[in-house]
Amino acid sequence: MSFNSFGHLFRVTTWGESHGPALGATVDGCPPGVPLTEADIQPWLDKRKPGQNKYTTQRREADAVEILSGVYEGKTTGTPIQLMIRNTDQRSKDYGEIVKTFRPGHADITYYQKYGIRDPRGGGRSSARETAARVAAAGVARQVLATLVPDLKITGYMVQMGPRGIDRTKLDLSVIGDNPFWCPDAATAELWATDLDALRKTGNSVGATIEIVASGLPAGIGAPIYAKLDSELAAAMMTINAVKGVEIGAGFGAAALTGVENADEIRLGNEGKPVYGSNHAGGILGGISTGQDVVVRFAVKPTSSILQPRQSVTIDGQPTEVITKGRHDPCVGIRAVPVGEAMMACVLLDQLLLHRAQVGEGPRGVIG
Amino acid sequence: MSFNSFGHLFRVTTWGESHGPALGATVDGCPPGVPLTEADIQPWLDKRKPGQNKYTTQRREADAVEILSGVYEGKTTGTPIQLMIRNTDQRSKDYGEIVKTFRPGHADITYYQKYGIRDPRGGGRSSARETAARVAAAGVARQVLATLVPDLKITGYMVQMGPRGIDRTKLDLSVIGDNPFWCPDAATAELWATDLDALRKTGNSVGATIEIVASGLPAGIGAPIYAKLDSELAAAMMTINAVKGVEIGAGFGAAALTGVENADEIRLGNEGKPVYGSNHAGGILGGISTGQDVVVRFAVKPTSSILQPRQSVTIDGQPTEVITKGRHDPCVGIRAVPVGEAMMACVLLDQLLLHRAQVGEGPRGVIG
Amino acid sequence: MSFNSFGHLFRVTTWGESHGPALGATVDGCPPGVPLTEADIQPWLDKRKPGQNKYTTQRREADAVEILSGVYEGKTTGTPIQLMIRNTDQRSKDYGEIVKTFRPGHADITYYQKYGIRDPRGGGRSSARETAARVAAAGVARQVLATLVPDLKITGYMVQMGPRGIDRTKLDLSVIGDNPFWCPDAATAELWATDLDALRKTGNSVGATIEIVASGLPAGIGAPIYAKLDSELAAAMMTINAVKGVEIGAGFGAAALTGVENADEIRLGNEGKPVYGSNHAGGILGGISTGQDVVVRFAVKPTSSILQPRQSVTIDGQPTEVITKGRHDPCVGIRAVPVGEAMMACVLLDQLLLHRAQVGEGPRGVIG
Amino acid sequence: MSFNSFGHLFRVTTWGESHGPALGATVDGCPPGVPLTEADIQPWLDKRKPGQNKYTTQRREADAVEILSGVYEGKTTGTPIQLMIRNTDQRSKDYGEIVKTFRPGHADITYYQKYGIRDPRGGGRSSARETAARVAAAGVARQVLATLVPDLKITGYMVQMGPRGIDRTKLDLSVIGDNPFWCPDAATAELWATDLDALRKTGNSVGATIEIVASGLPAGIGAPIYAKLDSELAAAMMTINAVKGVEIGAGFGAAALTGVENADEIRLGNEGKPVYGSNHAGGILGGISTGQDVVVRFAVKPTSSILQPRQSVTIDGQPTEVITKGRHDPCVGIRAVPVGEAMMACVLLDQLLLHRAQVGEGPRGVIG
Repeated sequence: MSFNSFGHLFRVTTWGESHGPALGATVDGCPPGVPLTEADIQPWLDKRKPGQNKYTTQRREADAVEILSGVYEGKTTGTPIQLMIRNTDQRSKDYGEIVKTFRPGHADITYYQKYGIRDPRGGGRSSARETAARVAAAGVARQVLATLVPDLKITGYMVQMGPRGIDRTKLDLSVIGDNPFWCPDAATAELWATDLDALRKTGNSVGATIEIVASGLPAGIGAPIYAKLDSELAAAMMTINAVKGVEIGAGFGAAALTGVENADEIRLGNEGKPVYGSNHAGGILGGISTGQDVVVRFAVKPTSSILQPRQSVTIDGQPTEVITKGRHDPCVGIRAVPVGEAMMACVLLDQLLLHRAQVGEGPRGVIG
Repeated sequence: MSFNSFGHLFRVTTWGESHGPALGATVDGCPPGVPLTEADIQPWLDKRKPGQNKYTTQRREADAVEILSGVYEGKTTGTPIQLMIRNTDQRSKDYGEIVKTFRPGHADITYYQKYGIRDPRGGGRSSARETAARVAAAGVARQVLATLVPDLKITGYMVQMGPRGIDRTKLDLSVIGDNPFWCPDAATAELWATDLDALRKTGNSVGATIEIVASGLPAGIGAPIYAKLDSELAAAMMTINAVKGVEIGAGFGAAALTGVENADEIRLGNEGKPVYGSNHAGGILGGISTGQDVVVRFAVKPTSSILQPRQSVTIDGQPTEVITKGRHDPCVGIRAVPVGEAMMACVLLDQLLLHRAQVGEGPRGVIG
Repeated sequence: MSFNSFGHLFRVTTWGESHGPALGATVDGCPPGVPLTEADIQPWLDKRKPGQNKYTTQRREADAVEILSGVYEGKTTGTPIQLMIRNTDQRSKDYGEIVKTFRPGHADITYYQKYGIRDPRGGGRSSARETAARVAAAGVARQVLATLVPDLKITGYMVQMGPRGIDRTKLDLSVIGDNPFWCPDAATAELWATDLDALRKTGNSVGATIEIVASGLPAGIGAPIYAKLDSELAAAMMTINAVKGVEIGAGFGAAALTGVENADEIRLGNEGKPVYGSNHAGGILGGISTGQDVVVRFAVKPTSSILQPRQSVTIDGQPTEVITKGRHDPCVGIRAVPVGEAMMACVLLDQLLLHRAQVGEGPRGVIG
Repeated sequence: MSFNSFGHLFRVTTWGESHGPALGATVDGCPPGVPLTEADIQPWLDKRKPGQNKYTTQRREADAVEILSGVYEGKTTGTPIQLMIRNTDQRSKDYGEIVKTFRPGHADITYYQKYGIRDPRGGGRSSARETAARVAAAGVARQVLATLVPDLKITGYMVQMGPRGIDRTKLDLSVIGDNPFWCPDAATAELWATDLDALRKTGNSVGATIEIVASGLPAGIGAPIYAKLDSELAAAMMTINAVKGVEIGAGFGAAALTGVENADEIRLGNEGKPVYGSNHAGGILGGISTGQDVVVRFAVKPTSSILQPRQSVTIDGQPTEVITKGRHDPCVGIRAVPVGEAMMACVLLDQLLLHRAQVGEGPRGVIG
């Protein structure tokens, strides 16, 4: 109901603007007794942090998280955890000239139409800076997940930038951290670098597609109908700035398949668990996890803040040309990778708690 | 929170199984004084109804809706509206031989793993029959929308079946009702007929892509961050059976665009409202409507119930081959069209009520 | 959010009017695998049923519950359970003459002011008949509670009718079922019979106070701050028709106590659990159960539908005198007893599921 | 769902402990364009602030509120408002000796049993200090209420302390601020001063009853069944620390009344609105406001932290005697007055927004 919260039982409410004194997340419903310090959260924020290479905004933010509540002697107490990140480099003067104009492709026009407010400071609440709060909250979720499902592993990477996709036959998760694009294909990463250098010089930007994979999630997590795991993941990913599409497993590709092709055949594996011959389902059937990898992909549109002139109107209705100076990401998709991982972590934990509530911790439908 | 409800203020809870005595929807939060009779809802159910042509399941259901509460003298009272649809053709014997096996690509295995229950009667709660309840609920939503935003028009159609997409240059909304595929391109509809005849003969099925367009929605509807209009729509569409992907506007195509290409340029129209040069945004910026058409597409996987044998396991863990006899849709995407329209109606009404709650009915940010 | 739902995880939505074709409850979030048939629910409805003696309304309703969904082969499936009760004795003609007047003390005036609807048929949705749906839903809750906390016992009884209260020194739970008042003090029950006979003859009605006790609830159930067990119980009891006050343990009496008097002293019992010297807390401290009896009391105002004339206005604003004929309870408090028990069952189950979600089933803070 | 949030549309989440670095409230769903500065909120916090006279705890807190987000150029933006209050006088050493014991009547034992955590610092999250965050949030609510219902007035006062109640015939709202007890009867205030001086000398504490009245609320606000205005108010008041009972209008007194006595007779007033001959209903019928004063009373138990020894156990299960030194309120009821007002403000605003969502701003049922 609340516009700035997500999650049912592990519930995160984010707050704060790009250019205010601080932003943060209120994390409610966290299980008690989980080890948690700021040092557990900071690495995830560092991964998302701007200004780490020439392909992301040059805004410099320490993004240092402070835990203001909910932790006592290094453990969660079960009460709300307030995570605050102070803004330290909010040069709002950069935005001065656009106070009265609307950027094509940017939310400033719809915020104004909805609320009657024109807050030009870095996009206010619609800034991608809000995602820092999610990443911090997900740092808490990961600590809990580590206690509940120690084998769970969440990995995000970019699979397409502009028209160029990775070569799936070269996919190597071990190289993701070796390039500025979280690209799992080293050769493609080099081509992207060339592509993006060219785009930046022309003051243009570009879209991207991100893939997030969760392995190690047990079967049976999720719920039918309106809390389907895929629906929850789609909602979560679609809340990330600039995301315009979400798909699970074969996704849009499934539209082109036949039933024979799409059916993931089943056999019983050595450990007495079902093993599937393929994963078109992306690890989810009927909204509930199968035990296979959960595979989500989402498309990120190109940054709307570009240096090339676009036709627009002023708040007074006058025609104008907009060029957005300031510090912007030429490909916001890059920084969406850790954010997508964060949303995956939050959704999975929330669903695990929901499952525990309804079904308990004991055994349920066992095959064989 | 509730697994079988959706919506925040206009809140729908569906119940019932494919092969029980009845199914239905409890609609809560409906504004009072809205004209509503069963005759207002029935046409939408008839549109979704199975057995209307050879391309949908031959199950025969009247799908006659009964209003059990919430209406007095032909008007809504503001109290909950119970919509019940009796099942009349639930031949559960068709499913007899699959009681102990799991269909590849079907939710029966995950329901069993979650709940420890194996209800073989037509898929139980995971059956697409549940969508009848949504369509009925959306019939209520449409009556309310007609009073709040009379110009709103929601149109759904199929744009791809298997590998074959429509020719966008031939798109003609007036022909949608003239073919069994809700196809807006008459020539493609004929090709689909040939394609699907061939598939049916081999006992196979096929996927599809559906597009739902809402025109006439005012600007300013939706909310930032975790109740973004696109996020709500993505969640809603992804709850429809067999849906594996959702996109808004340019969607996954936006990943391949540059910022220059993607920016929908703005000018002020004759009526004093912004007019856009394109609609890559799909009518939504920052989670809030722009006033352009809201454009959503979703991919439907092929029906998992097919007549060709697939490898699987029994509940006892034994390897087996599954052939699913019974009455199934060779392309469930066809019947997903009115369901997608229904979800669009419910989401938009819910968001309109949320907007009225927070911002009221008075004027807000006006341009020019 | 939803106006006709309660509970967070065990979520009940009731629907239906006093004089429509049926009413019922949609129960969502029920754990799977719990034994459930209509015969498990019916006894609770029979206990609440009108017309059982001369002190309750003479309306004759079988109140036969039908389970329309969510149960397969006698066990819950984890999907929504639809409970329907058909209305069979809705003589709406009884209300004919009051269509245009408002009964003093009745909700018909506020419903009209809110919704602009005047549904005279037996109070429509505001009728106490809605509580049948709650009692049915609580029948489901009790089945689940029996599996989760077999020692839990919920007992309700009337402790005051009009100015006359029971003699606490004579309290004997074994006699509750022996008189028409659910009175745990046989001597007082006889006096109440005399009192109420006199009131009925004059066409008057009277208020009452009900006490509901839950014994056997483990310590640690509930939550701090805004989901306190006492807050949830207060909200639940206050939703029962005609309830005007709720208290826990010493309740309003605690205002007159000193800290020395009010403190329930603690020692360790033989079973290694804390034992308290008194129970002013009513089994709840800081919103969380102590393991003592949970004690809730609520006050029920006298029925507003009486045969003595009261000054009122018509819908046209004209002064009028109202006498409410028809079949009414001279003391609605009597039939509120099983309803209060029902709400206790629903709240406790919901809280147990919430607790299991956040804290799990394993050990937590153990004393000694 | 979330344990630390309340409200449906105007949604407040509080966070922070008594002895951490800060506490606060995240306010979501606030309408945009409402004037708001820290100076609008601070007076309400000052009213609740400890240490203002010898009858409240001697802890010294500035309770200075900082707005960290959601406000731009002195107006709300419609995005979440973060209100932070730093703790400045958290002498946790005062509590040192009680780390291993449980105070009779205090929540430390149940928090431990639930979460397995023993945070001795000032009661952690269960401290009444949490109410500062509510009062701050209500400061925002009041600003919105001032724009929506300018005539609304919320007044709280103490009507009983220990066994001594006020003389209702002397009730004079103008003297409430003239004594340290928020007492509307000057003579009783003097007697309370004598009573409380005596109690403090013996290291004892005492309970109280508070009354909160809202005048000027239009008819039609609230909702039937599970979001009844009285249920929402009861839940809200019962979440305040140490509250053990809540009643509306005649409340528990209604149990002793007859229907003839209890019925508030109606006539049409000069302004064309219904006027009532009495207000036993406390301004609410069927969960919906009548337009009369909304009258809520709640009972506050005596502070459990007292200087007289009480029997208890240690965390190791050993018997012990507890004396709670430190700075405590001899009558926490005093400081509950502004908190009760705050909860009233938040509930009424939330209900007004819910009403606007469902019914709109236009005319509804008009009498006459």
